[in-house]
Amino acid sequence: MMAEWKDCIKNLKGVVLDICGVLYDSGEGGGVPIPGSVEAVKRIKASGLKLRFCTNETQATRDKFVAKLQRMGFDISVNEVFSPAPAACKILKDRGLRPHLLVYDEVVPEFIDVDKSNPNCVVVGDAADNFSYKNVNEAFRVLIGLEKPVLISLGRGRYYKETDGLKLDVGVYMKALEYACDIEAEVVGKPAKMFFQSALADMGVEPHQAIMIGDDLVNDVGGAQQCGMKALQVRTGKYRPNDEKHPTVKADGYVNNLAEAVDGILKHLGE
Amino acid sequence: MMAEWKDCIKNLKGVVLDICGVLYDSGEGGGVPIPGSVEAVKRIKASGLKLRFCTNETQATRDKFVAKLQRMGFDISVNEVFSPAPAACKILKDRGLRPHLLVYDEVVPEFIDVDKSNPNCVVVGDAADNFSYKNVNEAFRVLIGLEKPVLISLGRGRYYKETDGLKLDVGVYMKALEYACDIEAEVVGKPAKMFFQSALADMGVEPHQAIMIGDDLVNDVGGAQQCGMKALQVRTGKYRPNDEKHPTVKADGYVNNLAEAVDGILKHLGE
Repeated sequence: MMAEWKDCIKNLKGVVLDICGVLYDSGEGGGVPIPGSVEAVKRIKASGLKLRFCTNETQATRDKFVAKLQRMGFDISVNEVFSPAPAACKILKDRGLRPHLLVYDEVVPEFIDVDKSNPNCVVVGDAADNFSYKNVNEAFRVLIGLEKPVLISLGRGRYYKETDGLKLDVGVYMKALEYACDIEAEVVGKPAKMFFQSALADMGVEPHQAIMIGDDLVNDVGGAQQCGMKALQVRTGKYRPNDEKHPTVKADGYVNNLAEAVDGILKHLGE
Repeated sequence: MMAEWKDCIKNLKGVVLDICGVLYDSGEGGGVPIPGSVEAVKRIKASGLKLRFCTNETQATRDKFVAKLQRMGFDISVNEVFSPAPAACKILKDRGLRPHLLVYDEVVPEFIDVDKSNPNCVVVGDAADNFSYKNVNEAFRVLIGLEKPVLISLGRGRYYKETDGLKLDVGVYMKALEYACDIEAEVVGKPAKMFFQSALADMGVEPHQAIMIGDDLVNDVGGAQQCGMKALQVRTGKYRPNDEKHPTVKADGYVNNLAEAVDGILKHLGE
């Protein structure tokens, strides 16, 4: 297995990490770090490799999310984290779009500078319990009432894993609204190419010099590969054994967890 | 316009009517009849044409639903109504499937004779307010935990119209669960061919001798046409002007309401 991805390690300059399911498992009380991950992040930074985090997390503002990770012991700062809400805000402003928000309450402050009056689009994030029938129906009515409905989705994940089990992710409700209105959503966040490219550009690293490590085969691994990066899937978080038999997406390597991935990378670095 | 569909009227033997949006508009307090519809049903029956009702209604048992329509003045009886829940029960029993139900509380009694212990499939109906995040997630967890997930959907409608506005229909949540689990649902009810065929067989009428009248272009009109019937769309209920420019489904005629459709039919009958 190692042989499959160690070739790209020689020229490796940057690492992109998913957060939820790789660094920690989310859940009641904020979640818990995955064993070895706190140390693994420190070792990547100590090695001189550049490091950025790409998350589709939209259940909190980036500030609060990063503060939570710091309390768990992770060496991480806000400017190293790429998340969909700030990227969506830029798109909204650039195109004069006024969103109706179907998101988690805690992420609403990310949209504080955006005009939300008389909405001409819908932004859907991982709203979790806010995905009530009433709230989803309200978003639907905004969309169906528009001449040209615009739906912006903060990711397209199917589900994620919390400490108490699997939870439906934003992509499921994106699909629901797409079908209801017979439209196609614009996805911000993984697996959108532009999202990975922003992180690469910020590191000043070319795709072939970078590796992505994530627990989501389609959005992390597939998205990064589409972008020209190598990508490993960890067997933590939402990983399921069936992922390794996926008909179209194949990771460059499968590792038990982030610690094992970092072991492999540091062993072959600059060989 | 009349010329397009009157040819089939000469040999007409049976009429299939959708209920919600054709006979009445649902909503708070049970809904209200669409003007002229009570009389129109009487006129079809008086003409000697056979008549059945095909509804994807799954917010009440068939008994209660029919009783409500009778109180509104409609000449309708339970054995004239084809609805998805009884059809689904037959499939469940035939295949030894034990459902986890994601349906409206009032329709649960339809499944009283079905074993619901240790579920090995999910049945989704128009659950309306029961489509909470918690309930949808629970159905998802049942499906994703099965070796071979089976999802049975009572219809595939996008939305319907109640007196207070448009409401998301079962198809939207069917799509959500399909995407979450990467599976395809089995649809019982319109537009499934077998559903229309049951109504035709019950009347003893061939498809080319029957006409369907509905407000849903894809599920009523498209479904009936797939089955070899002619079909009219009424401009009541969930009808939207854009329906008349639909890229793939074209009704054999568009009429303002059921009363106008029956006027046209009776005028040309046996010409």
